[in-house]
Amino acid sequence: MAWNTEETRRRLKEAAVAEFAAEGLAGARMDRIAERAGINKERLYKYFGDKERLFATVLADEMAKIAEAIPPEILTEVDLGEYAGRCYDYHVEHPHFARLLQWEALAYGEKPVPDEAARVAHYRRKVAGFERAPHDGAIDPAHLVFLAMAMATWWDAVPQLARMVTGVAEVAPAEHARRRATVVEAARRLAGAATSTSGT
Amino acid sequence: MAWNTEETRRRLKEAAVAEFAAEGLAGARMDRIAERAGINKERLYKYFGDKERLFATVLADEMAKIAEAIPPEILTEVDLGEYAGRCYDYHVEHPHFARLLQWEALAYGEKPVPDEAARVAHYRRKVAGFERAPHDGAIDPAHLVFLAMAMATWWDAVPQLARMVTGVAEVAPAEHARRRATVVEAARRLAGAATSTSGT
Repeated sequence: MAWNTEETRRRLKEAAVAEFAAEGLAGARMDRIAERAGINKERLYKYFGDKERLFATVLADEMAKIAEAIPPEILTEVDLGEYAGRCYDYHVEHPHFARLLQWEALAYGEKPVPDEAARVAHYRRKVAGFERAPHDGAIDPAHLVFLAMAMATWWDAVPQLARMVTGVAEVAPAEHARRRATVVEAARRLAGAATSTSGT
Repeated sequence: MAWNTEETRRRLKEAAVAEFAAEGLAGARMDRIAERAGINKERLYKYFGDKERLFATVLADEMAKIAEAIPPEILTEVDLGEYAGRCYDYHVEHPHFARLLQWEALAYGEKPVPDEAARVAHYRRKVAGFERAPHDGAIDPAHLVFLAMAMATWWDAVPQLARMVTGVAEVAPAEHARRRATVVEAARRLAGAATSTSGT
């Protein structure tokens, strides 16, 4: 019984991630999520509340997953380049994540997001870790962390721009490796700790 | 008569930009666009075709506007830092632009966008200009241009992340100036031409 509930919740959330990533908060439909999961709609509402609350639950889950893969303390252990490279990998492996962030931006923008306090705490720990690590201090550490995320995420956020600017339509593994190497080197340069200035 | 047609088209497109920026391609409604413009829906369809074609027209117009403000040859005249700074300014002055790019990403993604050939030509001219300007060559010039765009645009693309990572909720002119200075310096570092490594 308890297992069934857990399994039902898991299936509903998995269907919700797919639906929200594809359609966004405004475009997603609760009946389609229930149908994707093969579970009736009443249970979906019973477990997760309305669509806004379900979106908040999905985002919180996804944030927990990325925090497990890339802990907020990571910048005490690796440099900004390696951090950006791991973020790049995460986005390649979880293409829905950048989409969810953008849907969140388009739905909330200047308004507080659900769970804002927990999210802020997460990012502040990340920035604090970076502040303790070696960097040259000429650029605000929070800005550097934000820009490292930008460089890691932008490829997946606007794939049409990546395709048009680079001229590469099919992103094969070798192209991912090239893009990742760019992101790592670029983030190192940002932090004032470039590893090379000629050859890659 | 001719003037009236021009003025009607202008008003309809202005209403379309607002509606598409707010709701995206899937969420936008033709009747709401006509209503915003105060012009009947039949004329909207007559002048611009269906919703997809109107979205394509709006994007093409917006691309023409940014190309006028920041011409594709600009990287033969200014360095990557100044280029990124001007892109940052453009986004601050035209907050709907990043949203339209994201809606385009979410609607098209891996599929060709309308007018793809013209867009590609625009971006290739930009990259070609940069290839002729001084840069260290260790990172693919197309990647550098793409990342400069990323750093200039990310603030407006995901304002909720900018707020949570920096801890700054209200973006006053002084904060814009700080962010712009970061973007300029960061893009210079990317290009291997940092102007300073201590103090800002």
